[in-house]
Amino acid sequence: MTARPTNAHQALVLKLLRDEGPNSRARLGELMDLSRSKLALEMDRLMETGLVVNDGLAASRGGRRSHNLRLAPELRFLGVDIGATSADVAVTNAQLEVLGHLGQPIDVRAGPVAVFEQVLDMAAKLKAAGLAEGFDGAGVGIPGPVRSPEGVPVSPPIMPGWDGFPVREALGQDLGCPVMVDNDVNLMALGEQHAGVARNVKDFLCVKIGTGIGCGIVVGGQVYRGVTGSAGDIGHIQVNAQGHPCACGNRGCLEAHFSGAALARDALTAAESGHSGELADKLAASGALTAADVASAAAAGDNLAIDLIREGGGLLGQVIASLVSFFNPGLVVVGGGVTGLGHGLLAAIRTQVYRRSLPLATGNLPIVLSELGPQAGVIGAARLITDRVFSPA
Amino acid sequence: MTARPTNAHQALVLKLLRDEGPNSRARLGELMDLSRSKLALEMDRLMETGLVVNDGLAASRGGRRSHNLRLAPELRFLGVDIGATSADVAVTNAQLEVLGHLGQPIDVRAGPVAVFEQVLDMAAKLKAAGLAEGFDGAGVGIPGPVRSPEGVPVSPPIMPGWDGFPVREALGQDLGCPVMVDNDVNLMALGEQHAGVARNVKDFLCVKIGTGIGCGIVVGGQVYRGVTGSAGDIGHIQVNAQGHPCACGNRGCLEAHFSGAALARDALTAAESGHSGELADKLAASGALTAADVASAAAAGDNLAIDLIREGGGLLGQVIASLVSFFNPGLVVVGGGVTGLGHGLLAAIRTQVYRRSLPLATGNLPIVLSELGPQAGVIGAARLITDRVFSPA
Repeated sequence: MTARPTNAHQALVLKLLRDEGPNSRARLGELMDLSRSKLALEMDRLMETGLVVNDGLAASRGGRRSHNLRLAPELRFLGVDIGATSADVAVTNAQLEVLGHLGQPIDVRAGPVAVFEQVLDMAAKLKAAGLAEGFDGAGVGIPGPVRSPEGVPVSPPIMPGWDGFPVREALGQDLGCPVMVDNDVNLMALGEQHAGVARNVKDFLCVKIGTGIGCGIVVGGQVYRGVTGSAGDIGHIQVNAQGHPCACGNRGCLEAHFSGAALARDALTAAESGHSGELADKLAASGALTAADVASAAAAGDNLAIDLIREGGGLLGQVIASLVSFFNPGLVVVGGGVTGLGHGLLAAIRTQVYRRSLPLATGNLPIVLSELGPQAGVIGAARLITDRVFSPA
Repeated sequence: MTARPTNAHQALVLKLLRDEGPNSRARLGELMDLSRSKLALEMDRLMETGLVVNDGLAASRGGRRSHNLRLAPELRFLGVDIGATSADVAVTNAQLEVLGHLGQPIDVRAGPVAVFEQVLDMAAKLKAAGLAEGFDGAGVGIPGPVRSPEGVPVSPPIMPGWDGFPVREALGQDLGCPVMVDNDVNLMALGEQHAGVARNVKDFLCVKIGTGIGCGIVVGGQVYRGVTGSAGDIGHIQVNAQGHPCACGNRGCLEAHFSGAALARDALTAAESGHSGELADKLAASGALTAADVASAAAAGDNLAIDLIREGGGLLGQVIASLVSFFNPGLVVVGGGVTGLGHGLLAAIRTQVYRRSLPLATGNLPIVLSELGPQAGVIGAARLITDRVFSPA
């Protein structure tokens, strides 16, 4: 069992060392606004737990040279990002640097037992590769609503068999470490905040386009989850009253018109009806079409694929424009498996947002692609569990 | 010049006494988790400033009877709520109880100098009525975006002449007290949180329907203003791509379809085209129609008026449904001048939200009318300025 800090000062030291890297005692004292003697006391206690170690002498700042401190280099965290059709598993150190990362296709509809068997296999492979002996904590993202803080999936629409499954307990037992669970989109936002394009941004939105669509909301540096944990569930906002039927029972939901699943459906229709030679060739070659095929067809200049991205991106842009008017964020990050759609998608979104939202809200609003790609989720997952284990028990 | 607290403990005492009313030293010590001696020291200092006074002995709780404390009964705050066509001005004590309240029609397009002349007249009348000798602070709400914390209006679309007007300085000089300025909708949310239907709710939305439409957003008990102060600006969310032209230059904005101004426009069309006898009679009688006329025509059973409310409320409901999916609030409050539309409006909104948003977000979501009516804004304004003067200088 990994030791835990015993008070808020110690917790703050651990998070500063995680987020800023090794630092001198002198600088930590300044950042924490704590007297030298009080800081020294807390540091000694932290070093007794083994969470923090000496890291040589700091560069001189004119006076006596201060000792550098860092988080114990042997600490290991597991970041797990479960999507509808793939899972990413990574091992990080305590600064959330990714030491090893595996991704493989899964089917979330196979249920939690089958999916976690695959996840544990991947974790075992990472251990066998010498990246970790055991884990000091694991964070898990799943593609559906999660009741916070229990970490239990709640009626996830695309995840039959997951409702109420005790992820924390089940996985915690298998891994022998504390586990925290959250929605995959919230973890993507945490990842981009920790190591990606949203670093140092306090209020931003992170839109993830995978099989479905979701939005992570960060307010004042913290993920906002709403009163029942469903905040950011934008996939079922209506974009067309007479639109496609949606799995949720309504009609014209954003996700029924633009998402990985919707693109795959539209690509199949286009290939079968002869409107896209590029997509028809891909269908003939592999027997199925995905959003990635639309992306590569568009890159190859296929007009229908380009139109699908432009129209779908326009619908998503309309929804984002509404959210920008409502939320006035400092940044919008677009990510997820479908970001292979790239700059055509971004252009379609920007057109809508800059046309529809008020100048005061868009005057200084970057709309950018995720920087971390599939690593955003696993880094966010590791961040989630370190937020927990670096807090007083 | 009113004294200010000198540290965070004193500030907390003042806010507790404001929000909870007179309280015993013993209970305050518990609420603040402060030792008896430390609390006694801070109390003595606060009593020296004159902000806090003794209020007799508290009821016995078994041990030695504790002294009750309260905020000085002579403290006075001015709450000002400026709308597009009316202004409300109220005097409150330090617990934000309204001691006197005046409302009168104004035209915000007359510009800040003319409007504040009327506001100062109303304040003078309230003083002349013996409600205050002077003011310890004033809060002001205006119907447009405000740059925070400077309190300067920023290109308010319906307020020609207000852009950049230094409200705090100008009014502060006239009143001889500190002034804070915010958007009227944020202050309505603060008012409902302090004394209305949102008391003790941490995460909620407050939709105000006046000449335009706006939304106050409260996250974790604090008003969320966005990165440039324009959060909650939902009036220009598009509800119909082929809809009415809007003053903002776009087409089909919510506010162009449903707001006080839109209702007045539609009522006039209905009266002139002979589709509503009730509205035609009102037009003949007064020469003009307002949203209030639509409300009373609907109450009298006029079908066209009822339809206007149902259709407009449905459009507003669609927007609120999107915001509920996105934000997952614990409560939605609907208020503003148009709440005379009452339960027909509420029914139209609820139908859309409960149909369109996911069950996890609506399972326990009250959608209710404002409790405080025109007092919400002035109480919120007084709350804004007391948040300031009850903080360390």
